[in-house]
Amino acid sequence: MSYDKTSVQAVLEQVRSDGRAALSAGEGQQICEAYGIATPQQALASSAADATQVAERLGFPVVLKVASNDILHKTDAGGVLTGLDSAEQVAKGYDTIMENARAYDADAHVTGVLVQQLLPRAQEVIVGATTDPVFGKLVAFGLGGVLVEVLKDITFRLAPTNAKHAAAMLDEISGAPLLDGFRGADPVNRPALAQLIENVSHLVSDFPEISELDLNPVFATSDGAVAVDVRILTDFEPAPTRYRPSEEEILAAMQRIMQPDAVAVIGASSEDGKIGNSVMKNLIDGGYAGEIYPINPRAEEILGKQCFKSVLDVPGEVDIAIFCIPARFVADVIAEVGQKNVAGAILIPSGFAEVGEHELQDEIVRVARESNVRLMGPNIYGFYYTPKNLCATFCTPYDEVGKVALSSQSGGVGMAIIGFSRSNNMGVSAIVGLGNKSDIDEDDLLTFFEQDPNTEVIAMHIEDLKDGRAFAEVAERVSKKKPVVVLKAGRTAVGARAANSHTGALAGDDRVYDAVFRQSGVIRAMTLNDMLEFARGLAVLPTPKGENVVILTGAGGSGVLLSDACVDNGLALMQFPDDLDAAFKEFIPPFGASGNPVDITGGEPPATYKNTIELALNDDRIHSLILGYWHTIITPPMVFAELLSEAVEAARARGIEKPVVASLVGDVEVEDACRYLMKHEILAYAYTAEKPVAVLGAKYRWARSAGLL
Amino acid sequence: MSYDKTSVQAVLEQVRSDGRAALSAGEGQQICEAYGIATPQQALASSAADATQVAERLGFPVVLKVASNDILHKTDAGGVLTGLDSAEQVAKGYDTIMENARAYDADAHVTGVLVQQLLPRAQEVIVGATTDPVFGKLVAFGLGGVLVEVLKDITFRLAPTNAKHAAAMLDEISGAPLLDGFRGADPVNRPALAQLIENVSHLVSDFPEISELDLNPVFATSDGAVAVDVRILTDFEPAPTRYRPSEEEILAAMQRIMQPDAVAVIGASSEDGKIGNSVMKNLIDGGYAGEIYPINPRAEEILGKQCFKSVLDVPGEVDIAIFCIPARFVADVIAEVGQKNVAGAILIPSGFAEVGEHELQDEIVRVARESNVRLMGPNIYGFYYTPKNLCATFCTPYDEVGKVALSSQSGGVGMAIIGFSRSNNMGVSAIVGLGNKSDIDEDDLLTFFEQDPNTEVIAMHIEDLKDGRAFAEVAERVSKKKPVVVLKAGRTAVGARAANSHTGALAGDDRVYDAVFRQSGVIRAMTLNDMLEFARGLAVLPTPKGENVVILTGAGGSGVLLSDACVDNGLALMQFPDDLDAAFKEFIPPFGASGNPVDITGGEPPATYKNTIELALNDDRIHSLILGYWHTIITPPMVFAELLSEAVEAARARGIEKPVVASLVGDVEVEDACRYLMKHEILAYAYTAEKPVAVLGAKYRWARSAGLL
Repeated sequence: MSYDKTSVQAVLEQVRSDGRAALSAGEGQQICEAYGIATPQQALASSAADATQVAERLGFPVVLKVASNDILHKTDAGGVLTGLDSAEQVAKGYDTIMENARAYDADAHVTGVLVQQLLPRAQEVIVGATTDPVFGKLVAFGLGGVLVEVLKDITFRLAPTNAKHAAAMLDEISGAPLLDGFRGADPVNRPALAQLIENVSHLVSDFPEISELDLNPVFATSDGAVAVDVRILTDFEPAPTRYRPSEEEILAAMQRIMQPDAVAVIGASSEDGKIGNSVMKNLIDGGYAGEIYPINPRAEEILGKQCFKSVLDVPGEVDIAIFCIPARFVADVIAEVGQKNVAGAILIPSGFAEVGEHELQDEIVRVARESNVRLMGPNIYGFYYTPKNLCATFCTPYDEVGKVALSSQSGGVGMAIIGFSRSNNMGVSAIVGLGNKSDIDEDDLLTFFEQDPNTEVIAMHIEDLKDGRAFAEVAERVSKKKPVVVLKAGRTAVGARAANSHTGALAGDDRVYDAVFRQSGVIRAMTLNDMLEFARGLAVLPTPKGENVVILTGAGGSGVLLSDACVDNGLALMQFPDDLDAAFKEFIPPFGASGNPVDITGGEPPATYKNTIELALNDDRIHSLILGYWHTIITPPMVFAELLSEAVEAARARGIEKPVVASLVGDVEVEDACRYLMKHEILAYAYTAEKPVAVLGAKYRWARSAGLL
Repeated sequence: MSYDKTSVQAVLEQVRSDGRAALSAGEGQQICEAYGIATPQQALASSAADATQVAERLGFPVVLKVASNDILHKTDAGGVLTGLDSAEQVAKGYDTIMENARAYDADAHVTGVLVQQLLPRAQEVIVGATTDPVFGKLVAFGLGGVLVEVLKDITFRLAPTNAKHAAAMLDEISGAPLLDGFRGADPVNRPALAQLIENVSHLVSDFPEISELDLNPVFATSDGAVAVDVRILTDFEPAPTRYRPSEEEILAAMQRIMQPDAVAVIGASSEDGKIGNSVMKNLIDGGYAGEIYPINPRAEEILGKQCFKSVLDVPGEVDIAIFCIPARFVADVIAEVGQKNVAGAILIPSGFAEVGEHELQDEIVRVARESNVRLMGPNIYGFYYTPKNLCATFCTPYDEVGKVALSSQSGGVGMAIIGFSRSNNMGVSAIVGLGNKSDIDEDDLLTFFEQDPNTEVIAMHIEDLKDGRAFAEVAERVSKKKPVVVLKAGRTAVGARAANSHTGALAGDDRVYDAVFRQSGVIRAMTLNDMLEFARGLAVLPTPKGENVVILTGAGGSGVLLSDACVDNGLALMQFPDDLDAAFKEFIPPFGASGNPVDITGGEPPATYKNTIELALNDDRIHSLILGYWHTIITPPMVFAELLSEAVEAARARGIEKPVVASLVGDVEVEDACRYLMKHEILAYAYTAEKPVAVLGAKYRWARSAGLL
């Protein structure tokens, strides 16, 4: 699609020089035409006679609409008359509309009446664009009329968007069946409608001064899509964009910050209970092998390490400085560490934006930028990077080495990560506190984790995004390689208010976050526990090679619950070809039901589990396996756990890697069996059918959005 | 409202004697009028001349509609013309409709064209009634047109319903705002619309031969509600209703079954591994103090108990007989235990309807009814009743005595209950396997638990309801006294298919289940784990005295997640009056945020938790308390747990009973703190903000529906 930018530029110049914010209907139509957005034939009439003349030129029937920038909801103002069939009706209609408009708002400036050709009956939809404080330009699509207003049946994309996403938007709304010829209607022309969405998204991206655009309604028919009403608002003073270094700069700094060879502790202390003491202890006890430089003007040595009065006195290079000093001293020391060419300042202190001290926070950001120092925090617990045994935090030493990197904006959530991972043997590569995010943000972390060979899964607790567009761009790229799980706190208005008082975060509309996460391939977790379980599970499960999921269960009741959970999590139960059905039936009692779930029935010996599990692992038409184990005396929990892990390990040895998850129901011994299975990298949960399926579902969501399925 | 039953009776008699299923438009209108359901003025015309005459009588404009029982979707057939303004238009319209109808379906019997007055523009809604295989007569309400068909925006009630429920239905649909004058429209007359729904519900209840009724559309305006189109179908051979003893009979039998003084074991055995041996052992090892009579023709004594050849040889009374014999012998022995006046047969054997042996199952039901024996099962693990130390099962002895009664239709879920309750110290009064539910059903259990002083909360895993109406009636009564939690398995089409192959259950539409559960005051759990957690939590939490929920948190991040969870679970964060806000602020650092959540901030000593918790417990404007604990060195987990339980226990000692739930985040020590709190009857969960709030939300849902709030 080629766009006529010059025409748009000319229209917008006129609007700007007039000092207006809103465009006239004619201007809107001009802009639409320049971007390949069809509008009905129409002309502005400034008298009844004029109106009849225009109508005769367009051909009857016509529609009349009041033309006024001051009247936004024309219908409410009695400013729309439709289906006018004759010159008399048009003349009379012109007067009626002018009277109605005066009655509605005597102060409104009315430029006349728009005479429009009456389009044939169509499905009414809405296409719009807006400027989101977090994400910038967004394009929106929904069904027209009350549907979008009452039911909020609308979907979003970052603008500009492409043909694939525009087409996907058409399917995302609940009312999507109406586009496809519901109850005998003609289906709409989907490519034309998608093209219109794409055009709008380019228009607002190319001209950021267009702050809002509404095509409402768009008439969608089998022929095409026509924007019947166009409303465009401008803002010629857009908000400044957040500073962002280049990707190379980000990566160079983040590598030094996350994997430092030398660490300074600003405000190190020998005194028990001080943060500067806890940090020193954690660095040493955690087993960090790099240089540790305590900085304190009033000490010679701290915990056996030579102490320096200033970071400038340190003989060697320093990669990060961990700040354990009060907020008011931070800015000056940032300047110092900048002089020392320190890559990052880890700002544990609180007392900044989170308590309303915005100026103090702005100040440290300014100094840091001048000094070329990246800031983590302030108001954080610090961070862990286990491959270097680095515990740059006042919390506690930590040693569950593994493949999951996590970040949190809240210390509480950070501590939940530590406890959960330790209790559940979730191996972790990094835990990072981001707190107020004055500088280092999720997109910086993503850029580092993307290339970090020690990290395979990334999970993030987010209260707000400082630069939603940067996050979306980086997340879209990274999530193609490694799963990115996000828990967005402040989903609800009440939660967002709490987040606001907590970190001064400006939370956007959750539906926008949801759309952007989906677009970026981010796996959204709706609860803290889901974030933790998804993070653990995604690191353990191999990527499935296809959509064929099979449930094998000893308890029919578990089979039902597991089936429900599959639907809830977007998983498809494989339809068995006859030979596969017959193969399973050979192993199970004659009264066992056919098909999927495979119900091996309750009282079966270990061999039945073993045979059916091996069959499922070895048949390459089956891509994932969900087990429902039922505790019986004949096949006790640990017997099941052992036979399952043996079968899976034997398959792995033959190069067969399939996701296997298990739900175990029974007496308390099933908890030991779950732990045993988890140690053998088989996801197993007691007393729940839903959790294992939810985690498998998360893996599928990721594999699909990463294009691996 | 008084209804003219005689008129309806006359119309239906005619339909029946004609051998028809569908009513004509005129008959539909007659029936509506008899039940106070307004319809437009109209008359049937059998010629164009006739039509113009009718139109002139009614006054222009009019609507024409094809009159044919063979054409259900009149619009699709080109059988509706609207807004006809003159005699000529009507005459021409008559011919057009007749032609269209012939073209649409040449075989359709067309009785003419209905001429109707054109009603003013209105909100179109749908009111309908249907006959559900599980629940019988239902009344439905939704918005008209595509909304109901595409978006399934519809709600149900059991018919007949009352004014309160009919009014509630109007609010339950997503499109509800459209009823209240959206975008300047007049609001509809809600009482009139609710009355119409109520009238329809009575009509189909009074005349069960009306199998389906559709008022589509109903025009709802500020004046009233008029059924523009009426479609009624009949079925004069309704399905037979399930046998149900009287409530007194149910209770008398269930008391003997659940609390027996003497138990016979049919097929008792000395042989290890046999079900008849496991049952004997569990009875004895479980500590059952009543009489135990092993029955086996080939033994003198089993496990130290005298054995009898037949239950008829037992000297004393016998309350229940536990069957451990193959399916084919069951029917004969049921007759025997009937002769012995045994109240209930506990049918462990499988091999009945669940494997397609429907005749065998019908046979035992017939014999049982003749012998006046109630049947539990078949195809079950048995049941537990802990107040009598009764383990009437082959599973395992069990002794977690407490207040929660649970039932499951699946053995797997039964075992999950046992493991979960033991692991989480959930005290249990009963665990009952219902399996195929050939006779004893959830409503029988509810009738028993309702009056059982040992039971305070009831939780049920249900795959299907054999008599949905009986369940709804009993549940509505019982849930006013004791919370009833239900996990409905087979929620999804796939799950329902699995349930079907599993127990032969015919699962109804899940939206109907959902509506009935809501109407009956049942707390629905969507997952197995939720059912278990709700059951445990509802038994522990006192009933709140009001809606004012307060969050107290040491971690701002937890406060945000807890706030989100409150919204998800329908809980309202209390708006603090100034004095309360000031009172909290006195205890927290000056930079702590105002309002609710109360963020006491991270580094606070135990006294801050203690002071704010005591304030919240003692202020009687606060009704429930949610705590977000954050692990710090200053206030370690067990210190928090002890101070919280001391404060709650001190309040209890003063007669203050408020629900208190806690989310603990931190290192693994928080798990011990949770266990400690749980032992002190404070619901506490680690690494999750959502679970404690979900359980509190369940308690509120119950308290509201039971009329306690």
